[in-house]
Order: sequence, then C-alpha cells, then structure tokens
Amino acid sequence: MVPAGGAGTRLWPLSRSSSPKFLRDLTGTGRSLLQGTHDRLAPLVQDRFLVVTGRAHRDAVAEQLPDVDGAAIVAEPSARDSMAAIGLAAAMLERRDPDAVMGSFAADHVIADPAGFGDAVRVATAAARDGWLVTIGIDPTFPSAAFGYIHLGDDLEGHAGAHAVVEFVEKPSVDVAERYLATGRYRWNAGMFVVRPTVLLDLLAEGDPDFAAALRAIAADPDTLEDAWAGLPKIALDHAVAEPAAAAGRVAVVPASFGWDDIGDFDSLATLLEAPDPSSVTVLGDDALVRAIAATGLVVPGGGKVVAVVGLDDVVVVDTPDALLVTTRARAQDVKAIVAALKESGRTDLT
Amino acid sequence: MVPAGGAGTRLWPLSRSSSPKFLRDLTGTGRSLLQGTHDRLAPLVQDRFLVVTGRAHRDAVAEQLPDVDGAAIVAEPSARDSMAAIGLAAAMLERRDPDAVMGSFAADHVIADPAGFGDAVRVATAAARDGWLVTIGIDPTFPSAAFGYIHLGDDLEGHAGAHAVVEFVEKPSVDVAERYLATGRYRWNAGMFVVRPTVLLDLLAEGDPDFAAALRAIAADPDTLEDAWAGLPKIALDHAVAEPAAAAGRVAVVPASFGWDDIGDFDSLATLLEAPDPSSVTVLGDDALVRAIAATGLVVPGGGKVVAVVGLDDVVVVDTPDALLVTTRARAQDVKAIVAALKESGRTDLT
Repeated sequence: MVPAGGAGTRLWPLSRSSSPKFLRDLTGTGRSLLQGTHDRLAPLVQDRFLVVTGRAHRDAVAEQLPDVDGAAIVAEPSARDSMAAIGLAAAMLERRDPDAVMGSFAADHVIADPAGFGDAVRVATAAARDGWLVTIGIDPTFPSAAFGYIHLGDDLEGHAGAHAVVEFVEKPSVDVAERYLATGRYRWNAGMFVVRPTVLLDLLAEGDPDFAAALRAIAADPDTLEDAWAGLPKIALDHAVAEPAAAAGRVAVVPASFGWDDIGDFDSLATLLEAPDPSSVTVLGDDALVRAIAATGLVVPGGGKVVAVVGLDDVVVVDTPDALLVTTRARAQDVKAIVAALKESGRTDLT
Repeated sequence: MVPAGGAGTRLWPLSRSSSPKFLRDLTGTGRSLLQGTHDRLAPLVQDRFLVVTGRAHRDAVAEQLPDVDGAAIVAEPSARDSMAAIGLAAAMLERRDPDAVMGSFAADHVIADPAGFGDAVRVATAAARDGWLVTIGIDPTFPSAAFGYIHLGDDLEGHAGAHAVVEFVEKPSVDVAERYLATGRYRWNAGMFVVRPTVLLDLLAEGDPDFAAALRAIAADPDTLEDAWAGLPKIALDHAVAEPAAAAGRVAVVPASFGWDDIGDFDSLATLLEAPDPSSVTVLGDDALVRAIAATGLVVPGGGKVVAVVGLDDVVVVDTPDALLVTTRARAQDVKAIVAALKESGRTDLT
C-alpha cells in the first residue's frame, strides 16, 4: 500500500497542494514519483497494489496509474495522518486475506537501486510472516538532522539481515546524528513498514482499541467511511504503533542501502539530479531553455521561457507558469516560509 | 535633438533590440526614458524638439511623444553611429535657422534635478552662441571605469561656470579614475553637446569635408536620405569632432551636478531606484507580486507572476513574458554575454 499525501511545501512552486510532489516528475524520467513508486513495487506485488490518497487527488492518481483497478485507489475524505491511512488499508487487506503481509511505502520517495530495495523487502516480508512489525532502515550517508533514526539491536534469530529495534528516535541535531553514525548502530527511518495487517491492527488496539475497531468497522462497511473518518485520531503510525511496539521488543529492522531519497527540498533534489558538468547548472526540464554563465546549482525552466543565470553559485531557480522561485541550495529549507507567506496574504491559489 | 538609439544589451531582458532601453519605463514613473528626456527638455526648447531614431522604432517614438510633430521624428535607414545621426540633425537645423543653437542629449539617461540641468544648459548655450563646441561634464560621484572623462582647463572668459577642455580621455581603469578624481579636474563625459549647427558641421568638415557635405546635401533634399545614408562613415561624434576640436582648443565644458545616470546596467538601476527598506529588495513594477525573505537587490516582476526570493543578497531577478534573468549586481556587466550567447544560438527573437 502506498500512502500518497503531503504537499511538499519545501518544493514550492513545483509542488502545490493542488499538484503535490508525488504527482510530479521531479527526476526528469518522464514518470511521476508516484508512478516511479508503482514501477518499483509492481515486480514485488503484481496487481495487489493499494493507494490511499486525498479526495482531491483521486482522479489524478487514477489517471497516472491506468493499470491499477479503481477500487484499489482509496480516497480519504480528509487528511488524518498516517495511522488512519495505513490502518484503513490494513483493515481492508485483513478482510481480503487474513494471512497477507502488507508493506507501506511512501508515494514520493526515490530509490536508485530497485533490486536492492526488492531484496530488503523480501527479508522484511519473511520476518513479518513471523509476526514482527518490520521496518527498513536506510544506511545514513551523512549526519542528517532531517530524518528520524532507528537504533539497531541484536540480530533477529532465523532472519539473516534483520535486527531487533531498540528504539526509534526523533530527528536529532547534527551533533547527535554524528554520534549516531559513529556507532554504526543507527539507520534512517524512511517510514517503510512491512507487517501482517492483523499484527498492525492488534498492536494499534493495545494502545487505542477504539481506533483499531473503527478502522475494522469501516473496512467491513465501506459506506460508513464518510461519516466515521472525521472521528478518527490524527496521529502518525510511528507514534501510535511503531514506538510503543519497539519499546515492547516487537519491531524488527532490515538495514539496507539502495540509494534512497525523500527529495525533501531543492538541495536534495539538486544532489539527486547531479549535473553532468559540476561547473555548470543542473537542469530539470528542457536544457535548451537555459543559458548559464559562471553559475552552478539547479534550474527548472518550467514556465516555457528562456532562463538565464549569470554569476551565482549553488543557486536554485524554479520557473513555473504562475510563480517563480529564486533561492540557494543552502536556504532550500526556508522555501516553506514563502508558502506560509502566500497563504497568509490570501494567495492560496499559488500554494 | 535627441539621438534615440542603442539596444542596452546589459539591461536584457528588459531592453531588447525590438524594444530598447529608451522606450522602457525603467524608473517606475510611468514614463519611458525617452518621455522623461522630452519632459526635461520641453521647458527649455518648447516645440523645437527633434528625434533621430532607427526606422524600426519610428512608430513607437511617435506614439510615445504625441506632442511632437511627425516631421520632427527622423528615421535613420540604418544605424551609423552618433556623428551621422547628430550631424544630420545639425544640417536640418542649420537650414531652418542659421543662428540656432542646438543641444544633443541621449534618449536613455535619467537626471534627478531637471532645474540644475536647465541651468547648465543655459550656461552652455551662451558659450555655444560665441562659437564654442560645448559639452556638459558631470561631477563624478565615484571612480567609474565605465565612462570617458573630460579634462578641465582654464575658466572660459566671459562665461562663468564654463571651462576650456584640455582633452577627452577614454574609459580609464579604476586606478586611473581614482587619480582623476583626486585632481578635481576631471568630469564624466555624458555625451551631451551644445553647439551652433554650423560650428559643428564646419568642425566636421575640417577633418572630413565629404561627410559634412553629404549631411548638408541630405538636409537640402531629404528624398536622398535613403540612398545617401549607407555611404556615410560610421563614427562617433567624439572621435569625428569633439576630440580633434578639443586638441585645437575649441571645446568648452560646463561642469555640473544634477544627479545624472545612464542606467548602464542593473547594478546602476538598483542604485538609482534605491529600496525604501535597504534590508529588502527593490521592486521595479508591481510590489504585490514579490515575496522576499532575507534578500536584497533588484526584482522586476515583469512576467505578471509571483516572484519569490529567499536568502540572496544583491541579487537581480528580471522576469518578462518570454525570458528570465537571474544574476547579481556585481555581475550585472556580464549580462551582455547572455545576449551574445542567445544571438549565437539563433534566439535573436529574444534579443
């Protein structure tokens, strides 16, 4: 199952609430991030593919995934965070096949090595069949303060390549992240979970039995979705299930390294796209529209016009038909402040 | 007379060969630079106003100057530098009034203090009546390497405020310009000339009698303009007349300080427009389209879309419907290289 949500405000003006990150081709491959996620999962799951997305994006998701049955694209009446979205999918899958193993993978991540990803998922699936809540922990490539971390415990008996999880830790400072990396025992939390739906819902029920029951009731009678949805708690799966389950020794992790990126901002997008010539700009889009002199960074000529950049290093220029962003890779995180300012001044049409 | 030519490539993409600098409102006053020049000169010359411009711009000039008689807008068949343009005006004016004094002032300069300008022109006019070729020398405000300089000689007898000119000097290095400023005897050459048309043409005739005769022949029979024009030398008035005349002791200068700027590039435009709040960006155009966070510099939201700038100092962002420029004030001179690159790649539609 693929939770397809999040506006990706740090990628404005490419990503908008009306056209979020997962619907955009941010890698220049001709496929959106959602389509890339589908392409990557299809060899593992065939047609057992389920998307949970916002009502506003249901049609766009269906259009981008013509091979996916309409019934497998579930529209949330409103955004209620990841526990509700993934929990609903679990309740639906539990009814369909009580012995199934499900995996949950975000719609807006990229993975450079799909075969390596598939290997990790297979190890995780085997552990999930034995009743573990399994996550995949990404080998950190730098001491990031933008991700949560997973603290590795002992090897998981009978499952080579898997470990018990000591705990999940929130986004640390860079200093703390450096200490984590030095131990070799921490991995990035990419929000990937592999688990039997029944195990997931039973773990949820231990902390919030009403929530688990409500999800199972909706799955039993999908017509109640509209009315029941607004009453569900708005909470992340990590807090509702993963953290307490880890404390109880019931979570496993498969450490892996397959070139994962969540494209959190234009800085990471620039790193991901990597200029053919590091002394010039990276172009996402039509190269012929860009003229750069003594410049490096990322240029997105998405407005159809010529974009000329002169004498700026690590600049980010994103042109679209109705909005233009100029910033630097170092300030890429601050783009969300522009989105906030636009909202505040009533220009929600642009956000 | 106003020579209205020059593409202003360092102000691309605001200034184009199809829509050059002098036709643009670069100061946010609602009047183009040409209109501003007309407004400034009208109190001094009433309707004795003559424009020489390129054929491609004749209609636009007429449209911007509805008060100017069509016969007073002379279209050059091709660009042949300033001697031909100003010399033709001189020949036309000489026929109209042999005792006239003419002034030549570029169409794309700005002047902060029109009254001070008028005072300088009046001093220059009095000296011109006595047969001098008179220029106006701008008090330098910094050691610019972008302008030629005028070396002041002795006071001009009978004309308080005017000096003889020792020589015109080409654009110096900054070091040399600093030495010029230290002497107090150098002024910027802004290409302003006040002179009796007959004096100007006779000075020209001393070096190139055929050129002067050709200009007078065209003025005598304007129908010959088309055929005769292409045969005229392509030379600046400074080289053809002003420099040799200065060497012969026949040029005077009126030093003056009236807030002159030729808006040579976006750096000088940014200085000229001066942000209300120096910690934010200066906007030329609709303020409501610009969102800036931790940024300074110049933003021109000329494409009608929102322009967001985050975390860049002294940046220059110029958006237009078909081209976008991003550079810095320090690199403003290099914008002409973009225009050259566009021409080379066949995108003359954008230049």
